[in-house]
Amino acid sequence: MTETTMAREIAEQPAAISRTLDALLPLRSTVAALAARRRHVLFVARGSSDNAAIYGRYLIEVFARRPAGLAAPSVATHYGATLDLSDAVVVCVSQSGETQEIVETLDWAKRCGARTIAVTNGDKSALAVAADVALVTQAGREYAVPATKSYTTQLAAMAVLAGALAGDETALDADLDRVPAEVERLVDSRAGVDEAVERLAESAETLVSGRGIVFGTALETALKLEETCLRPVRGLSYADLRHGPIAVVDADHAAVLVSAADGPMVEGMTDLADDLRARGVAATIGIGGDARFAGACDVAVTGPELPELVAPLALVTPAQLVVEALARRLGLDPDAPRGLSKITQTDPVDAEGDR
Amino acid sequence: MTETTMAREIAEQPAAISRTLDALLPLRSTVAALAARRRHVLFVARGSSDNAAIYGRYLIEVFARRPAGLAAPSVATHYGATLDLSDAVVVCVSQSGETQEIVETLDWAKRCGARTIAVTNGDKSALAVAADVALVTQAGREYAVPATKSYTTQLAAMAVLAGALAGDETALDADLDRVPAEVERLVDSRAGVDEAVERLAESAETLVSGRGIVFGTALETALKLEETCLRPVRGLSYADLRHGPIAVVDADHAAVLVSAADGPMVEGMTDLADDLRARGVAATIGIGGDARFAGACDVAVTGPELPELVAPLALVTPAQLVVEALARRLGLDPDAPRGLSKITQTDPVDAEGDR
Repeated sequence: MTETTMAREIAEQPAAISRTLDALLPLRSTVAALAARRRHVLFVARGSSDNAAIYGRYLIEVFARRPAGLAAPSVATHYGATLDLSDAVVVCVSQSGETQEIVETLDWAKRCGARTIAVTNGDKSALAVAADVALVTQAGREYAVPATKSYTTQLAAMAVLAGALAGDETALDADLDRVPAEVERLVDSRAGVDEAVERLAESAETLVSGRGIVFGTALETALKLEETCLRPVRGLSYADLRHGPIAVVDADHAAVLVSAADGPMVEGMTDLADDLRARGVAATIGIGGDARFAGACDVAVTGPELPELVAPLALVTPAQLVVEALARRLGLDPDAPRGLSKITQTDPVDAEGDR
Repeated sequence: MTETTMAREIAEQPAAISRTLDALLPLRSTVAALAARRRHVLFVARGSSDNAAIYGRYLIEVFARRPAGLAAPSVATHYGATLDLSDAVVVCVSQSGETQEIVETLDWAKRCGARTIAVTNGDKSALAVAADVALVTQAGREYAVPATKSYTTQLAAMAVLAGALAGDETALDADLDRVPAEVERLVDSRAGVDEAVERLAESAETLVSGRGIVFGTALETALKLEETCLRPVRGLSYADLRHGPIAVVDADHAAVLVSAADGPMVEGMTDLADDLRARGVAATIGIGGDARFAGACDVAVTGPELPELVAPLALVTPAQLVVEALARRLGLDPDAPRGLSKITQTDPVDAEGDR
């Protein structure tokens, strides 16, 4: 079997994350100065970058203890509402740095008084040039359409950003240092990956759930499964799932549950695995978690031995391995899923009028 | 055929919305005083209430021109992160006012320095009692499990809130006055509803899309279709759909597109209808929009003749009619969907530990 480009880029992540941390950690004091006396952090992103921003949002609130949120770009691009953002740092996340909607929203944020940060893999991109500070990820060029190393290097940038905004900027450093080796270990072991692929291949419906710090990881897993394996997949937070849609889950469903190895969410995710099994789902596939969580799932895919706050940087690795292998298992090309291109635009770029 | 409770409660909405506006419009000056010199508005909600909050968020930003966002409740309930919310008004939305997670998050917000507003149908509920100001909706008791009048009265409360926070608090009043009659007209006409039901009954997969001010309406339509008709449904913003998942849409899918009759989103939604038809979806079902939008969809379900800013209060009516009729068409009881109860709890209420 010829290795796919996506598989090669998954394996390049330890080096890409190391390079990114080396490049960005020295910028923390610049970021801290930019954010001084500004209370709010607002993320602007779409797609995989939005899933990275969701991690950033939780990390900023839970670790750096500043209010953070996700912008609705159409407020800027379609409604042209002028808001007072003089108390905000606006963080725009885009792999290419060329997604027009995100660049437009950054320009709008500046006009509204915000300080702006770009998180992008495009060092000379429109986004990098326009922002007050550019955190340029060092993924290198990514050839496969599904984002892997460009996504995890965005997560590394989020951890750097959170450190810069926290009182104790180096508190995460020792754990971040361990990330590349953990990703490498997971790429090599593939424990549980093939069994997860078989169970997913057999199920008509897939849902993915997670909560809190790893919620973005669950959404990224859902998005990648959907886009790369071309099946409809729902990504739901544990809480939103419990709040109602769990009623729809039945024997047609495989459930992918994503959990860190520690933290306040593992117990609830374990109970969710028990509950879904009792509801007769086709399979519960656990990614990560602790031993009890793994035991509660039908298939246990090994996750990283990292504390919850930095776990997302490596917890997505086994999910990526599952997606890549499932696409092949289904006879699809993981490197070039139908209907996707590398620089995504929300609206046709040459559209007229006010869209 | 005996009328279902859900159908009766859909028809009660004109009176419920009128009562709610009468009760809440006089509270605008109280809300304005509470929010004076506070810049940010933060919503806390789950499920249908969260969909109402999404409308509230757009309306506060687009109409009242204040930064607004959606809280991540687990930051309060699971991570116990203390944030500086001395610049924020926190709006907690819960039909019952007894959802423990939402009440806990309100208490947390107060400790973080926020002023708090409850939007609830429970006038003596824990949420109403704990908040600085309670906007008590006048839906009356709702017996069917799927929220209809309790949801639209929450939307009315959002419009009142936005008015209170805007410079010109009465600017929406003339349009709000017209809402009850529009809802009544739509309940009576049912134009396009039965055809939409037939097309949805025939399709294996359903997705729902909308954008901006009516995005919450699209998510509420998706949630109701899923919970009441017990089928997996994905609700996606126009922008997120375009950004990738549109690649998965095929002949197994029916697409429900939700649009106001005017505003900056109609043109893009019309193009989306054209695009989805070109991709060979089983059916495009348009709810609302203008004549061009209706013409671009396979089935046109009539929406309200109201400007975009207040359209959600009546645009959900035809969606509710479709959900109620589709449940019956599928042999289900719309009044008591499997596995749902009226007061929703995110976590088991008697759970121990830190969940």
